Amino acid sequence: MAQRRKTRTVSVGTVKIGSGYPISVQSMTKTDTADIDATVCQIRQLEEKGCELVRVAVKDASSARAISSIKQSTRIPIIADIHFDHVLALEAVARGADKIRINPGNIRKPSEIDAIINSASEKDIPIRIGVNSGSLPRRADGQRGTMPEALLNHLERFRKRRFNNIVISLKSSSVEETVEAYRKIARECDYPFHVGVTAAGLPCEGIVKSSIGIGALLLDGIGDTIRVSLTGSPDEEVATARRILASAGVRHFGPEIISCPTCGRCRVDIAAVAEELGKALERVEKSLVVAVMGCEVNGPGEARDADIGIAFGANNKGAIFQKGKVTRTVRADEAVKVLVEMINKDVGAGLVPARDAGRK
Amino acid sequence: MAQRRKTRTVSVGTVKIGSGYPISVQSMTKTDTADIDATVCQIRQLEEKGCELVRVAVKDASSARAISSIKQSTRIPIIADIHFDHVLALEAVARGADKIRINPGNIRKPSEIDAIINSASEKDIPIRIGVNSGSLPRRADGQRGTMPEALLNHLERFRKRRFNNIVISLKSSSVEETVEAYRKIARECDYPFHVGVTAAGLPCEGIVKSSIGIGALLLDGIGDTIRVSLTGSPDEEVATARRILASAGVRHFGPEIISCPTCGRCRVDIAAVAEELGKALERVEKSLVVAVMGCEVNGPGEARDADIGIAFGANNKGAIFQKGKVTRTVRADEAVKVLVEMINKDVGAGLVPARDAGRK
Repeated sequence: MAQRRKTRTVSVGTVKIGSGYPISVQSMTKTDTADIDATVCQIRQLEEKGCELVRVAVKDASSARAISSIKQSTRIPIIADIHFDHVLALEAVARGADKIRINPGNIRKPSEIDAIINSASEKDIPIRIGVNSGSLPRRADGQRGTMPEALLNHLERFRKRRFNNIVISLKSSSVEETVEAYRKIARECDYPFHVGVTAAGLPCEGIVKSSIGIGALLLDGIGDTIRVSLTGSPDEEVATARRILASAGVRHFGPEIISCPTCGRCRVDIAAVAEELGKALERVEKSLVVAVMGCEVNGPGEARDADIGIAFGANNKGAIFQKGKVTRTVRADEAVKVLVEMINKDVGAGLVPARDAGRK
Repeated sequence: MAQRRKTRTVSVGTVKIGSGYPISVQSMTKTDTADIDATVCQIRQLEEKGCELVRVAVKDASSARAISSIKQSTRIPIIADIHFDHVLALEAVARGADKIRINPGNIRKPSEIDAIINSASEKDIPIRIGVNSGSLPRRADGQRGTMPEALLNHLERFRKRRFNNIVISLKSSSVEETVEAYRKIARECDYPFHVGVTAAGLPCEGIVKSSIGIGALLLDGIGDTIRVSLTGSPDEEVATARRILASAGVRHFGPEIISCPTCGRCRVDIAAVAEELGKALERVEKSLVVAVMGCEVNGPGEARDADIGIAFGANNKGAIFQKGKVTRTVRADEAVKVLVEMINKDVGAGLVPARDAGRK
């Protein structure tokens, strides 16, 4: 796998963003930010699901003012999302936002951007320059510019003011455009990246789009914090973000269950077994690979990389295998119970699975 | 986006696989292949969902024999999946399989592989060499080899017999290992690729893993036919495969609905609108981009790439925009109806959306 792209480190409250730190998961509240109770409730719920940074929309002065109270009642860093009105950015900074996100493409006056830079400098908080494919200026020839062009233009202004406390994002609802833009800018600077695909849609499509866009970049070593945008609950955004990080092999959040798609060789309800196993292992934090395979003949070999697994055969039997070798045969109906016992015993004994070594 | 990797063309019944043709969607039946009625029923259902090639497990002689009857009652090409026993491959070829898939790593005698090559040559059908990370031989130093090493070894034998009617796959349940293997072999030969991540698990994780693995390769221009392996229904495999192709921008299957994740600025149930719109447009085949945005201020701009869209504002109004320009304002509760009417009128008038041009 590609080495992670080297970046500076940016601090957002207690969370560090950059190549020296784990890739963090963030989401955004969908409540009216001025409704402090609802927003705090959603942030706490997100935190419980594994969200590490949360962004709130600052659409007006009362939303900006709410940040002080929200921060008092929550623990994870709060990022203020501002469009158009730089005064809201100044107010959000004054109210204690841990980072602000602006799209300089929709804050028209350079002096207004300068004012935002000054206030963030004073409080020593970072600014995300969030370029969006929908708000790109036209070039001299009348054609719309690209996201990398717009970003490099914005950066010029920040650099002139010697402001480097920056996180960058370049989002489009097109996966191709998003991936291409990040790859290009990855070669041009060492600011950390917030990676995501914007307006990805309902979960059924949005999960696929976000997985491809964010995942392809992670495999390249690109990305320091990620946000999955779904037209759905923010909890689902966080769950998907964690799955993307785990699937790309960059962070692990407990056991990974691999299970075969089943075929004409399989006589067991593999989906039911995998689901039962997933529930039984919910509280295990080790990043074990656990396999559930529908075929005794192929299973142990095909899932050789698994730390432990079960392959169901004919005659209502299950072969439990460890690193590809069958170590025990059990009745199919007691398979999950035995497997969970064995895993808990191994985890309790502090046996570290092979792939923990050398992982980021 | 990367150019599609140039490959030879392989014919599987009426479907061509290779860079000169659209990337095809395949799946695999989960029925007992010898149960002809159940298998035919599942194949027809898959075909209706957009599956273009189907694979069946050939675990014994009766499964192999069933292929003749299955072919008589179905239309899409049938691929026979064989492990271990070369006699089953010979029988499947004799029974009219349109392609066979073997993993030479589990057919031990070279003479048996030669016999399979001879029978496929006689019938002029292709063989997929399906390498799997679970069945890799050990090297002289006792270490397990890599998928690319195993594949290149197998290829040597096929080349010596001047058999080039080959499709290649290199699957692991690890996304990184899968992507790395395909990228490496992409530089070594011009055989078309069947791309997938194996044993990806239940839909919740499997969709993410498959999207990253297959999607990252598609963005590189790699992949000629894809299969999503889920511990779930084959219908869901096909739906996910189509979503991956559409998200990667390589094929389109009707309108793409982009919708914002909503935030504190949004006062409308965007998910409900997007779902309603999705249903209303189910029969539209044009690859329009349709946007549903929760904010009148950002919406039209952020979704500027959309052919048509709606952005909801305050006061229960919806702004309908086309290519970023607001062309009409309607009541929020009539928004979907008006939008669908406008789309149907445009489609009926044969207006081709911008992005159809130049697409594969």
